[in-house]
Amino acid sequence: MSFSAFDHASMSQALRLAALGMNTTRPNPRVGCVLAVRNEVVAEGWHEVAGGPHAEVAALDKAGPAARGSTAYVTLEPCSHHGRTPPCADRLIEAGIERVVVASVDPNHAVNGTGLERLRAAGIAVQTGLLGDQAEALNAGFFKRMRSGRPWLRVKAAISLDGRTGLSNGDSKWITSAASRRDVQAWRARSCAMLTGLGTVMADNPSLTARVEDPPLRPLRVIADSHWRTPPGSRVLDDPGTALIAGLADSAIPPELADTGVTCLPLPGSVDGVDLGALLDGLGERGINEVQVEAGARLCGSLLRGGFVDEVLVYLAPVLLGEGGPGPFALGELESMAGRTYLEVIETCAVGPDLRLRLTPGTGESADAAGDE
Amino acid sequence: MSFSAFDHASMSQALRLAALGMNTTRPNPRVGCVLAVRNEVVAEGWHEVAGGPHAEVAALDKAGPAARGSTAYVTLEPCSHHGRTPPCADRLIEAGIERVVVASVDPNHAVNGTGLERLRAAGIAVQTGLLGDQAEALNAGFFKRMRSGRPWLRVKAAISLDGRTGLSNGDSKWITSAASRRDVQAWRARSCAMLTGLGTVMADNPSLTARVEDPPLRPLRVIADSHWRTPPGSRVLDDPGTALIAGLADSAIPPELADTGVTCLPLPGSVDGVDLGALLDGLGERGINEVQVEAGARLCGSLLRGGFVDEVLVYLAPVLLGEGGPGPFALGELESMAGRTYLEVIETCAVGPDLRLRLTPGTGESADAAGDE
Repeated sequence: MSFSAFDHASMSQALRLAALGMNTTRPNPRVGCVLAVRNEVVAEGWHEVAGGPHAEVAALDKAGPAARGSTAYVTLEPCSHHGRTPPCADRLIEAGIERVVVASVDPNHAVNGTGLERLRAAGIAVQTGLLGDQAEALNAGFFKRMRSGRPWLRVKAAISLDGRTGLSNGDSKWITSAASRRDVQAWRARSCAMLTGLGTVMADNPSLTARVEDPPLRPLRVIADSHWRTPPGSRVLDDPGTALIAGLADSAIPPELADTGVTCLPLPGSVDGVDLGALLDGLGERGINEVQVEAGARLCGSLLRGGFVDEVLVYLAPVLLGEGGPGPFALGELESMAGRTYLEVIETCAVGPDLRLRLTPGTGESADAAGDE
Repeated sequence: MSFSAFDHASMSQALRLAALGMNTTRPNPRVGCVLAVRNEVVAEGWHEVAGGPHAEVAALDKAGPAARGSTAYVTLEPCSHHGRTPPCADRLIEAGIERVVVASVDPNHAVNGTGLERLRAAGIAVQTGLLGDQAEALNAGFFKRMRSGRPWLRVKAAISLDGRTGLSNGDSKWITSAASRRDVQAWRARSCAMLTGLGTVMADNPSLTARVEDPPLRPLRVIADSHWRTPPGSRVLDDPGTALIAGLADSAIPPELADTGVTCLPLPGSVDGVDLGALLDGLGERGINEVQVEAGARLCGSLLRGGFVDEVLVYLAPVLLGEGGPGPFALGELESMAGRTYLEVIETCAVGPDLRLRLTPGTGESADAAGDE
């Protein structure tokens, strides 16, 4: 079975609907649903907030009896288990849906494929994989957490054309334009958590909230702080219920810090700091899908060298800052070019006068085709 | 009088023809010409090489009697003076051209407007300014030299995402991909001269030729070398007739260097090196329109601080090189963000896995709109 132009258009629309939940579905995935009868859309729905109706149910509730005989376009496999809400697969069967088209199969072990089986057992035609890549990209964090137990890690860096994130005197305000700094807020808003280090807390005292209009949920602010030295009056602790400090288990937590009500997560580690893998496991257990890192060169470098980084979001300002300032990732001095770290550019766009680059870890393969000075 | 769609299409074609002379017209400008009668193209021509026919003459020679009554689309004002060839304005008049459309007026003092006057005096309808910006951009070097006596200066830099041009041990081979290194050759080929410093000659021993297929003219290789220390066996001197060393007038030129046959240009200067403005004046006097700088951080930084840079051509490789290596421009340590150097991105494109950015000196105005972290 192949897909028609209407199938493509409907799934595209379902993806747009899913994206309406960008900042609010956590820890759930973003999911959209379109119901159509004979190439006419009957109803649309999307998942808005955990505990609220799933996308399929939202669409079915709107359609009522008109759902009978329709095709359901769903960006993620309908669930077959009782979570906070009853299984969507059962609702689709009861509503008399004839065909279900799914973009991506649910990586959640409790669902994976069983939702589709239940639909097929009920005689519903089921097709999968339409715009599956887009559906998975929309929920990169959820998919990664379901598969590995760890969140998707995005490192944000604001750098000059000569690769500096600040001056030697520590000044880093501002390298990029006002337009870029506004753009960053949208990436914070979609993140389940922000991650920084004690150095940044001490130097910049950031709040790490998402300053977008009507922010419905605040990201969890996470501070990697081996010896629990975060000052209790830091902005990042101004709402302690949405903050977490990750320190070494064999270092004592000062009572004045514990008294703020912040979550303290004791972890294994070494003189180099907390075990970052254990930290990410801990965030995964707390349902954190996407983490945005806004931190200094040391923590960013450790995350990169540890292989924990999934994506780098660079705001490149066309300015030169000269010598002495730090780069985005502390990686030490290389002895040879062979030690370089390869990334791959997956998206470039202009944001005001700056360039925004999205990159993923790369292999350098495409750089090595034969050539000469 | 306004321009028709056919006028636009014809001038676009004349610009494409002009660009066929990209690497060969020096020290002359790149010029193209289209002759058309009643919206039918009769003949095309372009200037290929100094001493050879100008674009108008090339087209008129092809058209023969068919040129009578035609409109001539010329990217640059027809000349009115006897240079190596007779005045093109006279040839257009003799050929019975009825209308001349010119993209940009010649900035050459010997021509400036007089070519147009002569045409008008002969009863020819003359219009100017159609696609003038494109015509001027095509000959940015020629225009700059005619107006200021100095060439257009383009600094090429190959940098990592963390803004390094090499490692602390001096290794810089290669930061960018083979595709980028091939792309650089086209920019060298269109340049009248390449400029580097003694440090780069000693470290990399580059030839600084343009490795393109069938290179018809070699760029003049220019070395800024205060104390005439360029080793006579350097690759950059392998064809001494196309090399020039700029050193301090009060420093003695070693006989073994003079004996290579390289042009030695003694200049004023200081302990910081030769006077770069005087060097550029000297290059302008030699008919150099476009200079491509491929040099170390010190020379590039001096050129930038001196206000001599017109364009920066950056090949940005998505790799990280860590600490200790140099940046593209030695600018010292800044004491405050107010001391930053602003550039402006005018073009971005992908070259293999790398990004190529073209930038010009900027004001930073667009970065300062109101905003917040």
